[in-house]
Amino acid sequence: MKSSPLVKDLVNALQFLPGIGPKSAQRLAFFMIEKAQAKSRVLIDTLSECLEKIEHCKSCRNFSELEICPICSNPDRDHTKICVVENPLDVEAIESNSDYDGLYFVLFGRLSPLDNVLAEDLGLEHLERRLNAGTISEIIAATSMTMEGDATAFFLKEMGARFSVLVTRIAHGVPSGGELEYVNSTTIMHAFRGRQKY
Amino acid sequence: MKSSPLVKDLVNALQFLPGIGPKSAQRLAFFMIEKAQAKSRVLIDTLSECLEKIEHCKSCRNFSELEICPICSNPDRDHTKICVVENPLDVEAIESNSDYDGLYFVLFGRLSPLDNVLAEDLGLEHLERRLNAGTISEIIAATSMTMEGDATAFFLKEMGARFSVLVTRIAHGVPSGGELEYVNSTTIMHAFRGRQKY
Repeated sequence: MKSSPLVKDLVNALQFLPGIGPKSAQRLAFFMIEKAQAKSRVLIDTLSECLEKIEHCKSCRNFSELEICPICSNPDRDHTKICVVENPLDVEAIESNSDYDGLYFVLFGRLSPLDNVLAEDLGLEHLERRLNAGTISEIIAATSMTMEGDATAFFLKEMGARFSVLVTRIAHGVPSGGELEYVNSTTIMHAFRGRQKY
Repeated sequence: MKSSPLVKDLVNALQFLPGIGPKSAQRLAFFMIEKAQAKSRVLIDTLSECLEKIEHCKSCRNFSELEICPICSNPDRDHTKICVVENPLDVEAIESNSDYDGLYFVLFGRLSPLDNVLAEDLGLEHLERRLNAGTISEIIAATSMTMEGDATAFFLKEMGARFSVLVTRIAHGVPSGGELEYVNSTTIMHAFRGRQKY
């Protein structure tokens, strides 16, 4: 950025974002300076406020500016079910696409001993404490359908067993719109194993 | 964003950026809050400084925190040539990929009467004043190879003629790595018309 070192700084500062390389960073930087100054200022203020105020909910670990997030403190939700997910985006996906009305627990990751991610890194002792309180009747393991996601689900299954709590796993099978011909072999295998009376 | 209205505000605030839809905005927002707080703070500071300090260079109209940008004020550059481009990214592209050592003039757009973009919107009167000063010997029309880019180049040609200044147009032809079979017909036509002794 020969014409302006400051714009160069901005281009560099944008590149930590996922999916933003040097070219996209240039485009974003010029757009913000040239065409969207007012909206850029709103972004600055909102981001500053988020960084200052957002903490983790003491109950489910999801992001929240309150000590207990609105989902956990909602008396209309079913407080006997906990759906365990890997990250906050999963909570959003479930909230907008299902009629699940229980609570959540956000791991912010999944068990992966090879990458040094162990149970304590996922805050699973918090979950254990909630099970210990005796009010939970079902844990829904909604971790991803990957090796690590499955390992995490298995860990939850064993934890549930210790407290005699039912642990369920979300269904594994052919996705909506999926054609058998293009679906991978593990999915087909799980779709057959998990078949239900029609 | 049921768990946090503030995160929802951030997701909304990010969506003015080009190429960032609701899903990418969510991903960016969570990334900034969860994994990159320090870098997000740097971004806030740099963007604030840019919005506060970046103006247009009085000579070439490019972004600069100085009244006259480092390119225009560099005595080692050829001050008799002006390369006219549509936007600051074009300057960066030319600077990093060519040995051009003259000056620039940034239009921040291109003539497009149908969209109500006229000569005065592109600051062409500034360019006219520079031509009037009599120090310019060549204008390089490096606007894009589109209908509007060509119309802008034609406007520059007529302006140059009024001041008896040579106006050149960057070459139009098959791009590097381009295979004739996949190149469009206008490009082929221009490639033939513009052929040179080998």
